[in-house]
Amino acid sequence: MSGWREIERATVVDSPYLRVYRERVATPTRPHGVDWMVTRRKQAVVVAPRTPDGRFLLIRQERIPVRREMWEFPAGQVDGEPTPESILATAHRELAEEVGCHVAGAVIPLGSFFSSVGFTDEQAHLFLATDVLPREGNHAPDDDEAILECRAFAADELREWVASGAICDANTLSLFARLVACGHI
Amino acid sequence: MSGWREIERATVVDSPYLRVYRERVATPTRPHGVDWMVTRRKQAVVVAPRTPDGRFLLIRQERIPVRREMWEFPAGQVDGEPTPESILATAHRELAEEVGCHVAGAVIPLGSFFSSVGFTDEQAHLFLATDVLPREGNHAPDDDEAILECRAFAADELREWVASGAICDANTLSLFARLVACGHI
Repeated sequence: MSGWREIERATVVDSPYLRVYRERVATPTRPHGVDWMVTRRKQAVVVAPRTPDGRFLLIRQERIPVRREMWEFPAGQVDGEPTPESILATAHRELAEEVGCHVAGAVIPLGSFFSSVGFTDEQAHLFLATDVLPREGNHAPDDDEAILECRAFAADELREWVASGAICDANTLSLFARLVACGHI
Repeated sequence: MSGWREIERATVVDSPYLRVYRERVATPTRPHGVDWMVTRRKQAVVVAPRTPDGRFLLIRQERIPVRREMWEFPAGQVDGEPTPESILATAHRELAEEVGCHVAGAVIPLGSFFSSVGFTDEQAHLFLATDVLPREGNHAPDDDEAILECRAFAADELREWVASGAICDANTLSLFARLVACGHI
């Protein structure tokens, strides 16, 4: 974007999970540049799977950084270059792997969001998948994922869990916000 | 929580902005432990300031990691040990510093959320501040903050900006989700 320019970058961490850089960046109001520590991550996808009877599928999952189980919409990182095609393919992959479903309806884009703009460029693309149906055959989630349970929530129940704080991850809350604002809930 | 135990931790980065560790953690379903790279951050506070006429104050701010200006609810990190008192004090501080307001009504807690549970422990506490009023004297936001503008949004306008994707940071979307689910919008 106009006025934004990277002046310098030094690598602090370079791992498959995240990269940390010390950056000096010129901004529209600060053309001489400002120093910042930035954590760079792959882009991600979050999907709200809606069943033909209007319920939403969430998964319960162990999350190491926060030392707890969380109820969340299925989500995953985009491998390789993020393009409209690879982002959509990631949505379908996560529906298959995490909730064992395929989409008989539509995959409706609901924009994207940034998880923590003070320190990371991480961005997640949001979708509503309508008329999701169980795939043929047994569904066993990946061992790595540590998915403990999958459950369907009526819209009112989802709203109650958001209100109570039982749902408390940015992916699920941000997608809930878009679903409500766009009139899907 | 029961079943969670840190087995090992090695420091990768130790800075005032973030700390990165390689951790080995026992979980309820994986008692022998799993290896994870975790970015640890201070806790944060996000406040939805509502004026006596029912509008919400947002600020426009340059955000270095994502190279763009964002419209957001005021937010800031909790300095020192996060306690109910220091968290509440941070809410009042950010209202004063970022939107130049004090609270004539109430500061209503709306729980908390985690910004990206796959890689960071960052947690933000959410509040609605009612009947916020301009403070006496001139308000000049901190130079460091690069706050460009403050504006009041009617609830319907806020909803439209969430729907269109113009509002796209996890803080503001997650707080919007709680405001809606709790019946404040």
